[in-house]
Amino acid sequence: MTTPLRLGIAGLGTVGVGVVRIVQRHADLLEARTGRPVTISAVSARSRDKDRGVRLGGYAWEDDPVALATREDVDVFVELMGGEDGPAKAATEAAIGAGKHVVTANKAMLAIHGQALAEAAEENGVSLRYEAAVAGGIPVIKALTEGLAGNEISRVMGVMNGTCNYILTRMQDAGLDYQTVFAEAEALGYLEADPTLDVGGIDAGHKLAILAAIAFGTQVDFNGLSIEGIERITIEDIEQAADMGYRIKLLGVARRTGRGLEARMTPCLVPMTSPLGQLEGGTNMVVLEGDSVGQIVLRGPGAGEGPTASAVMSDVLDIARGNTLPVFGIPARELTAPEPAVASAPAAFYLRMTLIDKPGVLAKIATVLGDAGISIDRMRQYGHTDPNAPVLIVTHKTGREALDGAMAAMEGTGVLASQPVAIRIEDV
Amino acid sequence: MTTPLRLGIAGLGTVGVGVVRIVQRHADLLEARTGRPVTISAVSARSRDKDRGVRLGGYAWEDDPVALATREDVDVFVELMGGEDGPAKAATEAAIGAGKHVVTANKAMLAIHGQALAEAAEENGVSLRYEAAVAGGIPVIKALTEGLAGNEISRVMGVMNGTCNYILTRMQDAGLDYQTVFAEAEALGYLEADPTLDVGGIDAGHKLAILAAIAFGTQVDFNGLSIEGIERITIEDIEQAADMGYRIKLLGVARRTGRGLEARMTPCLVPMTSPLGQLEGGTNMVVLEGDSVGQIVLRGPGAGEGPTASAVMSDVLDIARGNTLPVFGIPARELTAPEPAVASAPAAFYLRMTLIDKPGVLAKIATVLGDAGISIDRMRQYGHTDPNAPVLIVTHKTGREALDGAMAAMEGTGVLASQPVAIRIEDV
Repeated sequence: MTTPLRLGIAGLGTVGVGVVRIVQRHADLLEARTGRPVTISAVSARSRDKDRGVRLGGYAWEDDPVALATREDVDVFVELMGGEDGPAKAATEAAIGAGKHVVTANKAMLAIHGQALAEAAEENGVSLRYEAAVAGGIPVIKALTEGLAGNEISRVMGVMNGTCNYILTRMQDAGLDYQTVFAEAEALGYLEADPTLDVGGIDAGHKLAILAAIAFGTQVDFNGLSIEGIERITIEDIEQAADMGYRIKLLGVARRTGRGLEARMTPCLVPMTSPLGQLEGGTNMVVLEGDSVGQIVLRGPGAGEGPTASAVMSDVLDIARGNTLPVFGIPARELTAPEPAVASAPAAFYLRMTLIDKPGVLAKIATVLGDAGISIDRMRQYGHTDPNAPVLIVTHKTGREALDGAMAAMEGTGVLASQPVAIRIEDV
Repeated sequence: MTTPLRLGIAGLGTVGVGVVRIVQRHADLLEARTGRPVTISAVSARSRDKDRGVRLGGYAWEDDPVALATREDVDVFVELMGGEDGPAKAATEAAIGAGKHVVTANKAMLAIHGQALAEAAEENGVSLRYEAAVAGGIPVIKALTEGLAGNEISRVMGVMNGTCNYILTRMQDAGLDYQTVFAEAEALGYLEADPTLDVGGIDAGHKLAILAAIAFGTQVDFNGLSIEGIERITIEDIEQAADMGYRIKLLGVARRTGRGLEARMTPCLVPMTSPLGQLEGGTNMVVLEGDSVGQIVLRGPGAGEGPTASAVMSDVLDIARGNTLPVFGIPARELTAPEPAVASAPAAFYLRMTLIDKPGVLAKIATVLGDAGISIDRMRQYGHTDPNAPVLIVTHKTGREALDGAMAAMEGTGVLASQPVAIRIEDV
């Protein structure tokens, strides 16, 4: 096959420019690896005049991404605009309708419209690929859909938002509170225009929803996720968790339980000696667990021009080689509706509370936990100068529901100086 | 496509049985993921009567793997016998000649005969795949040939022999010497029949030779590797390296330098806080570095029934999906002869020596290093009861050749109580 594979790239931000750079710099390498030239026919972006530091002169320009997506000289529509609806979705649908393959980095679009887009792509016999949508440069979609295709997947976990991990790591290293580090990150330009996407766990949740669909053969179900951001994590939580041997991570977990599927993107404690616990700064990590392979851990840059463009090119080159597979690993029409677990899997919990410093208060808390059937693994009361006593409890495994009941009962004892905090400890 | 993909499996040891188990247990899953049934037509092994704990009754039996490989009802020959020559090679060649795809876990055969086999496979239009040959369950061949296909690869590193890593970790944790832990590992059945394959670095070297070929587009060149095993690592090395913040690993490194390719499988020091430094026990880790992606780290089980069978199935399922690529990522006839580096890249070195305890001996050593243009980063002399003084030096970066010259010159000073030991410190 020596017919070139011709790209149309919509979106010339960091990632789009990175893709153009790879195509230009490695023309020979890409041809050697796929047996055909990979070329760019046309590009599209909001502003035509901006200097992006890369040659675009040889490519046709389209103001309208839909027009780009359906050009006769485009074989693969590369969607790098972002946004779950709007031009990205319109152009992706137009490309699929016109029989073009689509490569996208758009996690929001896939998390919300993945099922409909996958069905459309498969009906039209085109590829819809999205390696860059999850964990940047880490080839995790490929590992899950192809590398571990002989496995029944039992759990997928990941730290997939570099900004959150940067904030948590920085709080810990510098002993700073959340608000201070959030302001730093904002000043450094690390946050999305709407920071809730990052610190609220939405962006990472989009990624987890995609991984869960592949792992369990279910329709993408972003709305079925339980999501909690890092906004309420305090420096005290981080320091006291460390004192118990843990790190706090915004951890996505999708697991198969005996009672359905559980998928949540929430702060969790993980042992500081585990690969997840040792992950610092903006790096991403995904853990895949299958019945034959056991546990595989993938670590790498989760964002940035080079890593994300590398992932986009992986998809483009698979298409150039003629290699295809269903969008989510099995045909979209065979994906089942997810069955959310009736109750979350039991876990150990970290409980932080401040007690009024009077005789018998600890006994009251311990009694409440005992009455709820929750046993205590470890407890620490810290020295204090103010009148209230910081107390930390690590429970043995218990259901979240029992714990919530116990926490409500604690409120009734009158010994709490403030609302207690509970954070799940994930077995990793 | 609903035509079944029919396997012929030669070799029913741990891995072969693992593959049979997956095909039997996950028939529906495999069909959903590939669009066609995956079945076993025939098997072959040395002993027909052995109870392997798995149903084999439905499959034809062949005593001769060559006969198995060329059966009309076999589409994919799964070679799990091992051995670089002999029946494995004969049957693989026969399968290719008969137009069958081949999936193998045989690193030795690929490291020695990879070029000829790849050329034969590509001429015959069949796949020759070997995910299981390198790092067990970790999908590293896929990551390198497909996931990072848009990158020029600059370095590949890996801890790829679980037995060596187990021995080194156990020495460190228990403070035991090499001989004691080697005997333990032997008693536990962790070693190959010829233990030199493990502790001499041969097995890991085979894997590195394969990775280097893919990474740099060169013909597999096992004989061009520099290989050194772990037999001479002492507990003192491990403890003193730890004192300096390092761990000792049998580390394979293949890198592109300005002066050619460097590929070695040797003990190295790595920072104990790095992912490689934190790798304990039998787990494997591979680090891939590309110009766009930066650094990707893959971690997982490097051996065992389930993980290795998982990797075999990944190849089988790609073939079932109709997905192909050149054996080493680019067509075998385009692979270039490797150009070994004229000199190894400069590195910092750990130097351990025992000096006769007399005034002026340290000065003599320092002078020899200075004369060779080698500067000292850190030095420690340890307290001692015997008449000779253990001394540890970490150098700044220097060429191995300068260091070898300096070590020869040290011998001439008359202050060494025994031969000095030098171990490279790899930047990770």
